[in-house]
Amino acid sequence: RSFGGETTITATLFPGDGIGPEIADSVKEIFNATQVPIKWEEFEIGKTIDPRTGSFLTWESMESVRRNGIGLKGPMTTPIGKGFKSLNLTLRKELGLYANVRPCLSIPGYKTRYDNVDLVTIRENTEGEYSGLEHQVVKGVVESLKIITRQASMRVAEYAFHYAQTHGRKRVSAIHKANIMKKTDGLFLQCCREVAEKYPDIVYEEVIIDNCCMMLVKNPSLFDVLCMPNLYGDIISDLCAGLIGGLGLTPSGNIGDNGLALMEAVHGTAPDIAGKNMANPTALLLSSVMMLQHLKIQDKADQIHKAIMKTIEEGQYLTRDLGGKSSTSEYTKAVIGNL
Amino acid sequence: RSFGGETTITATLFPGDGIGPEIADSVKEIFNATQVPIKWEEFEIGKTIDPRTGSFLTWESMESVRRNGIGLKGPMTTPIGKGFKSLNLTLRKELGLYANVRPCLSIPGYKTRYDNVDLVTIRENTEGEYSGLEHQVVKGVVESLKIITRQASMRVAEYAFHYAQTHGRKRVSAIHKANIMKKTDGLFLQCCREVAEKYPDIVYEEVIIDNCCMMLVKNPSLFDVLCMPNLYGDIISDLCAGLIGGLGLTPSGNIGDNGLALMEAVHGTAPDIAGKNMANPTALLLSSVMMLQHLKIQDKADQIHKAIMKTIEEGQYLTRDLGGKSSTSEYTKAVIGNL
Ligand SMILES: CC(C)[C@H](C(=O)O)[C@@H](O)C(=O)O
Ligand SMILES: CC(C)[C@H](C(=O)O)[C@@H](O)C(=O)O
Repeated sequence: RSFGGETTITATLFPGDGIGPEIADSVKEIFNATQVPIKWEEFEIGKTIDPRTGSFLTWESMESVRRNGIGLKGPMTTPIGKGFKSLNLTLRKELGLYANVRPCLSIPGYKTRYDNVDLVTIRENTEGEYSGLEHQVVKGVVESLKIITRQASMRVAEYAFHYAQTHGRKRVSAIHKANIMKKTDGLFLQCCREVAEKYPDIVYEEVIIDNCCMMLVKNPSLFDVLCMPNLYGDIISDLCAGLIGGLGLTPSGNIGDNGLALMEAVHGTAPDIAGKNMANPTALLLSSVMMLQHLKIQDKADQIHKAIMKTIEEGQYLTRDLGGKSSTSEYTKAVIGNL
Repeated sequence: RSFGGETTITATLFPGDGIGPEIADSVKEIFNATQVPIKWEEFEIGKTIDPRTGSFLTWESMESVRRNGIGLKGPMTTPIGKGFKSLNLTLRKELGLYANVRPCLSIPGYKTRYDNVDLVTIRENTEGEYSGLEHQVVKGVVESLKIITRQASMRVAEYAFHYAQTHGRKRVSAIHKANIMKKTDGLFLQCCREVAEKYPDIVYEEVIIDNCCMMLVKNPSLFDVLCMPNLYGDIISDLCAGLIGGLGLTPSGNIGDNGLALMEAVHGTAPDIAGKNMANPTALLLSSVMMLQHLKIQDKADQIHKAIMKTIEEGQYLTRDLGGKSSTSEYTKAVIGNL
């Protein structure tokens, strides 16, 4: 992939539901103002189950991401009830999005208990505790299967080290509980070790998950890139988001084969404020910046990123969740003003 | 169980290895100085595997805890290598210690990023991801079984609500990932709900583990008692320990049937400083205070607890891990001076 100044790229957009459409509008406006060479192919969540995906996400929308190789996604609620497959999990599975990447950086203008957090969580996104294999053994005894494969572990470990190398990061920590799950987490570690040998310039270490969580709350600067199985990644990425202020401020990217990438805001759909022009679009905006970085449109990525940071630092046009009084569109306008 | 002023209670003591014996000495000295009516029955970790326990812990030492119903344990290293069963896990299993309880309170004299943390984690201690059931399915594909039973879940839920009620606590949060592990964590939640109905005065809520970790780092005062399956408890109890300064400052208790209780310091054996009179005995001391509370020797518990807090607050005789320069015995002497 390479882009000249004039090329227009087509990207798939899932605004999602709840506050999704409003925050997606914010991205679109800011991209327009920045003259980002992107054309959106937009898809709503379907109203009925598409038998080809087994979920409310249509086959056409999946085809669009596959064709474009790049997409952006707002929050989506999975309807509650039997037989409704999680939309997020459907996307990960259908598109083979094997790595979830969440850079977690302190936002200078937003004060939390932690300064200068700068780490990246890389989560295996397809297996582990998310196998969906569960059953009742006898009455009152149920079991879930955690599946770890060499293939998926190698793939995410390769990604983590490659990411570290191409992003100027110095250390990869594999997070595990192999003292208890000797075989599953043991295989995961073995794969990380094998890959680590190919990257002699990157420090490799292994940290037990409980200890990792304690160290993260005591001193997050001990970490750089964290690579881990699915559930640990789910837990630790949210913990890290908490360090810098929460999911409303953290971008996320899902990576598949051949550079396929779907960036997403991982916060909820906030139905209570949906449609009220109150939502904070920052997580989706930062995810769109990640998308531009992935596409190597670095100048636009930097320009938008700086404008967001400046707007938060100035603090005059913050949304309510950040302690301000501004609407989504006022905040968006302020970011555009800072471009 | 009830104790008159004159009755002497026999309690089992496992000093453990590494710094264990030194910090156990600190407890013994402080108990002597406070005239706590306890006689210790002390056991070392065996030098060979006892076939009756399958570990380095002797059958006689297990019998002692069963007979006395109460014990205190320092840190123990499990020798590394195939076929060595974890000493900690052996104790939990042999003695049926089904609940792990860790009160997590800010220590006024020890500053962290968090003030006024005051919560208790209650962890199912016998099953879940710790089943030890793992195998290779085919080459490159391994699985671990997570087992959740109605019996163990009811037992720990009952314990959590009973604990909340008898300790003046207002809320129990069940921590889970039942949106993914619908059957196993689903059964755990169902048991918590059933028990919650018997405690109408205690607020009951359910929190997904990833969200829980985020909320804990953002605002731990949202929580009171947290009740959860084994691995989540392992992770969250360490995270919470991190909030108040680490495992060197957190007590822990393991509870079994008929009031059986084994309190323990959950930090490591710190072989690098073992035997050097440098270790911080606070976690084991606070665990011994928990032991006295469990035995309803409340006056002595309070007396020792206050003396520890005062010593840390005064800050003149802290061990190195807390930024001081004192030895284990100087710190111990200071606590005795503050009794
Ligand atoms: C919504 C839920 C299924 C999902 C997960 O558990 O992976 C979410 O927590 C996430 O991290 O994307
Ligand atoms: C040492 C280890 C086996 C143990 C566990 O995982 O339970 C420890 O982390 C704990 O919390 O007591």
